[in-house]
Amino acid sequence: MLTSINHIGIAVKDLEASIEVFRKIFQFENIHREVVEEQGVSVGSFKVGDVLIELTQPTREDSPVGKFLEKKGEGIHHIGFNTDNIQGDLDRLKAEGVQLINEVPRPGAHDMQIAFLHPKSTNGVLTEICQHK
Amino acid sequence: MLTSINHIGIAVKDLEASIEVFRKIFQFENIHREVVEEQGVSVGSFKVGDVLIELTQPTREDSPVGKFLEKKGEGIHHIGFNTDNIQGDLDRLKAEGVQLINEVPRPGAHDMQIAFLHPKSTNGVLTEICQHK
Repeated sequence: MLTSINHIGIAVKDLEASIEVFRKIFQFENIHREVVEEQGVSVGSFKVGDVLIELTQPTREDSPVGKFLEKKGEGIHHIGFNTDNIQGDLDRLKAEGVQLINEVPRPGAHDMQIAFLHPKSTNGVLTEICQHK
Repeated sequence: MLTSINHIGIAVKDLEASIEVFRKIFQFENIHREVVEEQGVSVGSFKVGDVLIELTQPTREDSPVGKFLEKKGEGIHHIGFNTDNIQGDLDRLKAEGVQLINEVPRPGAHDMQIAFLHPKSTNGVLTEICQHK
């Protein structure tokens, strides 16, 4: 079951410049940095309340975020929701006719298991579900 | 100060159809419906954890969400953040050089005072700040 929002992913061209922009707005002191090779992104994340904001710069042009930037430009890329049963939700959603990008969870940032639903099935919203290991 | 996420706005063409799509995914029972004439939208909202997801269909083509749909299609339109001092934040952000759409708060959904920051200043993320009256 999807219980809460884990993070919001924002596609940016220049991670360091975007960190300074968002620091002005949210006045955070600390930022967590991580490269997720699997997704081809370099991530800078900070918390607003309980939700992580993930600024993501592609590490290669053919990564999903790289293609998104080329097609749509900078902006909100996806929303990640916490689940207490990622495989159960994937199976349930598939049975409901929701198109999945990943039918089986894969490794994501912050040591989580993640999977994406296809935006064609979700009114254009790229939706990630994630579960802590 | 921006303390937490209040809501995520999603632009949709057909509110009733999108409610059924998101009901499959999030299994909510109740949905709050509201027309916000000021913004030219008909809204259906449900909670995921503490965050409202607002499905917004334009009530007129020349509304901001109507223009967004025409230009970018369905998808995440904006993020709304709670603030405990909306005018103070607007003044602070303006002084920091962040471009504002609204320099003074205006009425929004759920009986809140709201203002938008310009996506040119926020890496393409249309950012709303909001305060309960």
